[in-house]
Amino acid sequence: MDRLECPFCRKTYPLDVFFPFCPDCHEPMLVSAPPRARSFSGAAGLSLEVYRNFLPLDRVNRRLSLGEGNTPLVPLHRIRRKFNLPPVFAKNETMNPTHSFKDRGTAVVVQKAAALGIRRVGTVSTGNMASSTAAYAAKSGLEAFVLLKDDTTTEKIRSAGIHGSVLIRVRGDYASLFRESYRIGRRQGIYFANSIDPLRIEGYKVTSYEIYRQLGDRAPRRVFCPVSSAGHLIGLIRGFSDLREAGYLPEAPRFVGVQASGCSPLVRAFAQNRERYCRAIRPGTIAHAISNPEPPAGNLALKWIRDSGGCFVAVTDTEILRAQKDLAELEGIFADPASATVLAALVKLSRREGARFRGDSVLVITGSGLKSMETLERQKVSVRQAFVGNLEKKILGH
Amino acid sequence: MDRLECPFCRKTYPLDVFFPFCPDCHEPMLVSAPPRARSFSGAAGLSLEVYRNFLPLDRVNRRLSLGEGNTPLVPLHRIRRKFNLPPVFAKNETMNPTHSFKDRGTAVVVQKAAALGIRRVGTVSTGNMASSTAAYAAKSGLEAFVLLKDDTTTEKIRSAGIHGSVLIRVRGDYASLFRESYRIGRRQGIYFANSIDPLRIEGYKVTSYEIYRQLGDRAPRRVFCPVSSAGHLIGLIRGFSDLREAGYLPEAPRFVGVQASGCSPLVRAFAQNRERYCRAIRPGTIAHAISNPEPPAGNLALKWIRDSGGCFVAVTDTEILRAQKDLAELEGIFADPASATVLAALVKLSRREGARFRGDSVLVITGSGLKSMETLERQKVSVRQAFVGNLEKKILGH
Repeated sequence: MDRLECPFCRKTYPLDVFFPFCPDCHEPMLVSAPPRARSFSGAAGLSLEVYRNFLPLDRVNRRLSLGEGNTPLVPLHRIRRKFNLPPVFAKNETMNPTHSFKDRGTAVVVQKAAALGIRRVGTVSTGNMASSTAAYAAKSGLEAFVLLKDDTTTEKIRSAGIHGSVLIRVRGDYASLFRESYRIGRRQGIYFANSIDPLRIEGYKVTSYEIYRQLGDRAPRRVFCPVSSAGHLIGLIRGFSDLREAGYLPEAPRFVGVQASGCSPLVRAFAQNRERYCRAIRPGTIAHAISNPEPPAGNLALKWIRDSGGCFVAVTDTEILRAQKDLAELEGIFADPASATVLAALVKLSRREGARFRGDSVLVITGSGLKSMETLERQKVSVRQAFVGNLEKKILGH
Repeated sequence: MDRLECPFCRKTYPLDVFFPFCPDCHEPMLVSAPPRARSFSGAAGLSLEVYRNFLPLDRVNRRLSLGEGNTPLVPLHRIRRKFNLPPVFAKNETMNPTHSFKDRGTAVVVQKAAALGIRRVGTVSTGNMASSTAAYAAKSGLEAFVLLKDDTTTEKIRSAGIHGSVLIRVRGDYASLFRESYRIGRRQGIYFANSIDPLRIEGYKVTSYEIYRQLGDRAPRRVFCPVSSAGHLIGLIRGFSDLREAGYLPEAPRFVGVQASGCSPLVRAFAQNRERYCRAIRPGTIAHAISNPEPPAGNLALKWIRDSGGCFVAVTDTEILRAQKDLAELEGIFADPASATVLAALVKLSRREGARFRGDSVLVITGSGLKSMETLERQKVSVRQAFVGNLEKKILGH
């Protein structure tokens, strides 16, 4: 039987998907390490099947999968040359079914919901998590409730709405909405799998296992990840930590958590060497997907990043736009601003550390630029005008 | 040395990437079957590497790849149940690097351009092919020229423009622009890899090889594919035909080419049993990506579909929108209208054939719904409004 464990006080409790917080510390809890053999399954197939021994799933129901995971790890030769860096790779999570990393977490959530006989799921989101949850609920025949912030754009509402979920636009404070979702969830039997849901986090571990295999059974020196709720980062750290505990790895990588300067509560707490962060006041950044003033797993992320020998880095909107353009122009990857932060942070950190910056880095690209087309208005694109008759001249730039 | 072959008169010529049309028949030519051993490579890795023996590539340069291919083949259980069908699968090509099938073709094009020492590539496109070409050119350090129709939306221009290509919006007739691109290409050394480029078509063969492997080394009974230029369809047919010739398959599948009723020159020619189609007059459909009144490989598609025992099917905009909604609501796949046509055609054909409709079908989902958000205005999405205080009531639908 699965249990949840508080990563601070280490107490454990039976799995409760309706309220996965520690009654004492009030921090989000994680799934306790399952007791089964920790080895890869030999089977090719769905990523959940290959790594099932590391996940809290007794079996994998293929009918609930959209084919998530197995995303490429692409070497960034041209970025590397431009910035004179040691090897750099992009783990391209935009190649998931709904074009973001969220699918890996949602895939585990629907497996567990089905195994527990839960027929209703939900989430509080404005973007990637909404469409991911809506899509997997559709595939699995679950009823889905997506709670949206009042200022969510029509475009984002439509792309979640196409999957037939119940969409509710909620006015009011985001933090109270987050808490309220759990209260209603328990009463109504709706499993609200929000950003720091422990099963969602289990899904993110798989990304680390894949990186390990793709590098030829080793870990990179550094992993860069954008940080919003910090659920994704916690999952990635946990994945490598699993591999170390299972004897696959001598040492886990260092993790670099990246936030936008306009909303960087964890960067601040890290710099001031504090164990707990303070809520960000008046957040503002073009990287909407990581504009989270009060990251639910933030304190845990602070602790684990320190333990890994890593750090937090903040990057400005100007740096983010520059990095988005570099990724697109040099490497053919169209990342959303939240994902582009990782390249900006890599450049910043490598300059700060100078000759001490050694070893390879993996940049986790979390979401597609297609989902935040509005930010492209800030990227200059020039278009020439021609007739068929003067086309050749225009091609030559005359 | 690679050669091109006219599929009508069977004459062959040395490979000329700057004008791949038969001097006698004026039809697009295809790459002649390479002489090397026709077997899969044992190596795991990039899809181009695994199937290189079937492709006109002496080697694969990994630096030019964005990790295309290896897309999932997803069983559609809920669609199957709703429409009372034999097994149905979706080959989800939206999970490619730029979210469409075009990447498979572009991947081969840039490999060949690099091998031939060509430093400039181009394409005539309004949508998926523009961003795919721009992205791969960026990754490969090639200069790229993207010729856009005058009415291309700003959004589409921006998502190709982010990769740093030269964008030229051209006023005038599309067919003359298409021809002019080759004339300029030869003079200026720009390899215009348009929709029916023979190397692009080679890339699409890989989709068929993957389907074969994913079904457990067999072919499906039917493959449904949206048809615009017909380049994609030709590639898919060729892929299965390769497998048959190499002794992997006793029989190739039947192919169903799908067009929108508002622009269906091939459906009409097929129904009238003609060998050559007539240009469609006043095309109009929400499936913009396949609104092609004069498909360059259309005559070959007519011949090959007939030879395969397959057919062409037209579907209306209403049927397309219904199918888009069904794919999203029942299977969690957000397809663009052009791709949704394949489900509409499956339903139509199965009703038409009744008890004679047996065996499994593969639907090729070519592009992501995210790239044609404007069509979502036609899909009804209802949103409830709530405060945190009355949220539970609103969730219950009161």
